[in-house]
Amino acid sequence: MTDLAAPRPASPGALLETALYAPNLAETAVFYREVMGLEEILHVEGRHHFFRLGQVVLLLFAPAATLLGGSDPSLPVPPHGATGEGHLCFAASAAEIQAWKEHLDAAGVAIEADFHWPDGARSIYFRDPAGNSLELAEPRLWFPDA
Amino acid sequence: MTDLAAPRPASPGALLETALYAPNLAETAVFYREVMGLEEILHVEGRHHFFRLGQVVLLLFAPAATLLGGSDPSLPVPPHGATGEGHLCFAASAAEIQAWKEHLDAAGVAIEADFHWPDGARSIYFRDPAGNSLELAEPRLWFPDA
Repeated sequence: MTDLAAPRPASPGALLETALYAPNLAETAVFYREVMGLEEILHVEGRHHFFRLGQVVLLLFAPAATLLGGSDPSLPVPPHGATGEGHLCFAASAAEIQAWKEHLDAAGVAIEADFHWPDGARSIYFRDPAGNSLELAEPRLWFPDA
Repeated sequence: MTDLAAPRPASPGALLETALYAPNLAETAVFYREVMGLEEILHVEGRHHFFRLGQVVLLLFAPAATLLGGSDPSLPVPPHGATGEGHLCFAASAAEIQAWKEHLDAAGVAIEADFHWPDGARSIYFRDPAGNSLELAEPRLWFPDA
């Protein structure tokens, strides 16, 4: 029974890791490395590829592997694993979004949507090879002072 | 056909949004608001609850709703939606992790794993009411200078 009245520490102030899942792990890892240009910091063949994204690590997992738990038997990492199309949004300036649109067009990656939100911030949407819905958006979408 | 040789802009340097999915959306939103103490910045009943997490927005979605696309017919947000247990890790200091362990214990949230990585960083793992695997970890796990 969850006791909602229990006192709690200050709420978490930052993300450290976020995860996406890809049954076609190797192909999808190539996309993040070569098309998105992310720095790969670790990988375990057939299980995961991890990428640095500023102060956050993007974890790309093969769900069939992570449902079995961690990759090191001495570390009790709990099982997890999702199927279907996840979502993640990268922060980018208006100029960077335009450059990305042209890059993705040239790379043969379809732009699924491209619009401005009511506050004026632009978002473009595309998909990784696993079908995850990726977005590049101006931070002012959420943080007006950004 | 993806052309991996196309020139590309500088790689994204920051995350703006990350997403988790919860078929039991309302119950799970209460967990993030009341147990984790995150600031809720937006919600659409039955579709999503969004929370601020430093410079990132944590999007909590009901996948049955997001598979239909966006909530505003005038904005062509592409469909997405995952099932199964996702993963997300919050950054926290060693002292904060200990305080969270005590808080989660008091709140009746089971700590599924609690260990130190080979580099000494501590992680604790628990689950939200949708079964997503949540972690609180010291940033030095990935960023030695943090």
